[in-house]
Amino acid sequence: MNKAEPTPKLPSIARALRQAVSFISPVILINDEPKGADQLTFPSENGMRMKYPNETIQLLFERSSCRSFLDKKIPKNVLSIVLEAGIHAPTAGNLQPYSIIEIQDLRSRRKLAEMCGQKFISEAPVLLLFCIDWHRNERWAELEVAPFTATSSFRHFWVSFQDVIICAQNICTAADSMGLGSVYIGTVIDFPAEILALFRMPESVFPVVMLCLGYPAKRPKPRNKLSIKTVVHKGRYSEMKDKQLLRAFNEKYRTEDSRNQTIPITLDKMKTIMNVCHETHGKEFAEKCKQRIEANGYINMAQYYFGLHYKADIMPTDNDEYIKLMERSGLKWFKKYVPKVETRTRSLKD
Amino acid sequence: MNKAEPTPKLPSIARALRQAVSFISPVILINDEPKGADQLTFPSENGMRMKYPNETIQLLFERSSCRSFLDKKIPKNVLSIVLEAGIHAPTAGNLQPYSIIEIQDLRSRRKLAEMCGQKFISEAPVLLLFCIDWHRNERWAELEVAPFTATSSFRHFWVSFQDVIICAQNICTAADSMGLGSVYIGTVIDFPAEILALFRMPESVFPVVMLCLGYPAKRPKPRNKLSIKTVVHKGRYSEMKDKQLLRAFNEKYRTEDSRNQTIPITLDKMKTIMNVCHETHGKEFAEKCKQRIEANGYINMAQYYFGLHYKADIMPTDNDEYIKLMERSGLKWFKKYVPKVETRTRSLKD
Repeated sequence: MNKAEPTPKLPSIARALRQAVSFISPVILINDEPKGADQLTFPSENGMRMKYPNETIQLLFERSSCRSFLDKKIPKNVLSIVLEAGIHAPTAGNLQPYSIIEIQDLRSRRKLAEMCGQKFISEAPVLLLFCIDWHRNERWAELEVAPFTATSSFRHFWVSFQDVIICAQNICTAADSMGLGSVYIGTVIDFPAEILALFRMPESVFPVVMLCLGYPAKRPKPRNKLSIKTVVHKGRYSEMKDKQLLRAFNEKYRTEDSRNQTIPITLDKMKTIMNVCHETHGKEFAEKCKQRIEANGYINMAQYYFGLHYKADIMPTDNDEYIKLMERSGLKWFKKYVPKVETRTRSLKD
Repeated sequence: MNKAEPTPKLPSIARALRQAVSFISPVILINDEPKGADQLTFPSENGMRMKYPNETIQLLFERSSCRSFLDKKIPKNVLSIVLEAGIHAPTAGNLQPYSIIEIQDLRSRRKLAEMCGQKFISEAPVLLLFCIDWHRNERWAELEVAPFTATSSFRHFWVSFQDVIICAQNICTAADSMGLGSVYIGTVIDFPAEILALFRMPESVFPVVMLCLGYPAKRPKPRNKLSIKTVVHKGRYSEMKDKQLLRAFNEKYRTEDSRNQTIPITLDKMKTIMNVCHETHGKEFAEKCKQRIEANGYINMAQYYFGLHYKADIMPTDNDEYIKLMERSGLKWFKKYVPKVETRTRSLKD
């Protein structure tokens, strides 16, 4: 499928057949490539170009997050299919302990864009807010006179978090296959109380992540990643040597001219990083970091990520506030369980 | 793609072209179906059959978890592609805070099957254990003289949990597209200490979920789900009325002869449910549950799930043990952050 264009193009018969042929064997090595065939191949671990075995693999390999959207609505039937793909996703015990808030009205989109400090959020025609939802199952258990403690169980928390993301990711893949672009917004977790109120979530519902959906105005190139050699451990966890580890990260953050990505030093940035270092690891460490930056002549990517982007002094604040807020929402996953012995049944209302 | 067969069949030219034509418009309504065309269509919300707009959507709609595998290895190049699809998945800040333990040796597979009490686990040729991994990023930050507090930050926990599952789910979809079957095993969370030791995970690494992969011996039919009308809320959370809610669940648990799924009463089951009810909500509730079961003449699905399958008395035990174990692994996500001021740098070893 063509991912950059909102309406997929009709592939030529030749291409359709070529795709069909590639179904025979999972991977076919190819030597001389006709012009434009790059779109059907990917560089393999050993440097050879391989043919994509099917269009789903191509989609998964070539995806990238989209932060710029056309001013174009998503047709209702397209959105239905994309959402439907989510509810077919695996979920433990088939319990589906999640809800999705579909947000299309401009006011809410602007509000969320403002809260998260990312303007493009209001430009995506559809926002999907994914929530853990034990409320629906709790009501079901109550009406069916069944015991229920999922809102007090770390195990249920752990699995329902998986279920909501599995659903979200199938929606993301489905959207991609329909020519849509998407990007996850993790920063909704910075405003849980506001989100709970804004979307009138009842007890036992908690927001996890948001997905922006729309037709892409442009789609960035896929980003470099740590290779499977680094991420996948055979048989047991294998510890890399320091130099291997640095090589793996340098390979990930290499630029097209094969230098490492770096951030130019400015007074402001230097001041921020020094402050973060001082707050988190003390004066001596801040001095050591400064020396490294000055010796390099740049801010390296680790210093950028944890000193400027996800600031290490701010990120761990309010841990206990999250726990308290969840408890106030009836979610007692992180504390010792005490049985609630009062009778829970009530009569059926219509 | 044919999902039931390990090696996908070559589609006929006619079918390839039919698929090609379906790319033009996202959804095409079709009236009279040639024989066998069911495989290319799905029932839509309004009851009409719709054509799948592309093979990825078909894959996502028709998937089901596979718990029975052929005695057949997964070729190395197929497994590579499947794993590679995972590392291309979205991840916040492109940080990839996860690791995958690939388990192929029979001894470990048997051990895991035994621990989780599910024999088929040892029959899957490949097990993938997905872990949150902040250890690699922590070492990187240390070597690059950058501040680091992700292991003390609830926000980082929240996002890395998402990242590891997003990666797992793309691997699951990729596996499906290559003719493999898969199933998530959530019960690894019941033995975190054993898993940490067995796979020699260092500090700041924690197992989340396991995926079994292999060529399917048989693939069950997709299971009924709550519809998008129930799961998706337009604009804000919308509370269903009691009767609507029961109707939605009854629709999900309907059998082919349109009766509700039920569990026959046995003395053992009755005793277990009564005990769970008594332990969790007291004597009066246990009596009420018993009356409902006797009046119905069967155990309903809510009673089955929370009284027999995920037993409500056992599920919430040990919440605090998980938190303690994570703390011992260096993961202080759930407690108030206190800066660690000691100097963290050491010299580079090779």
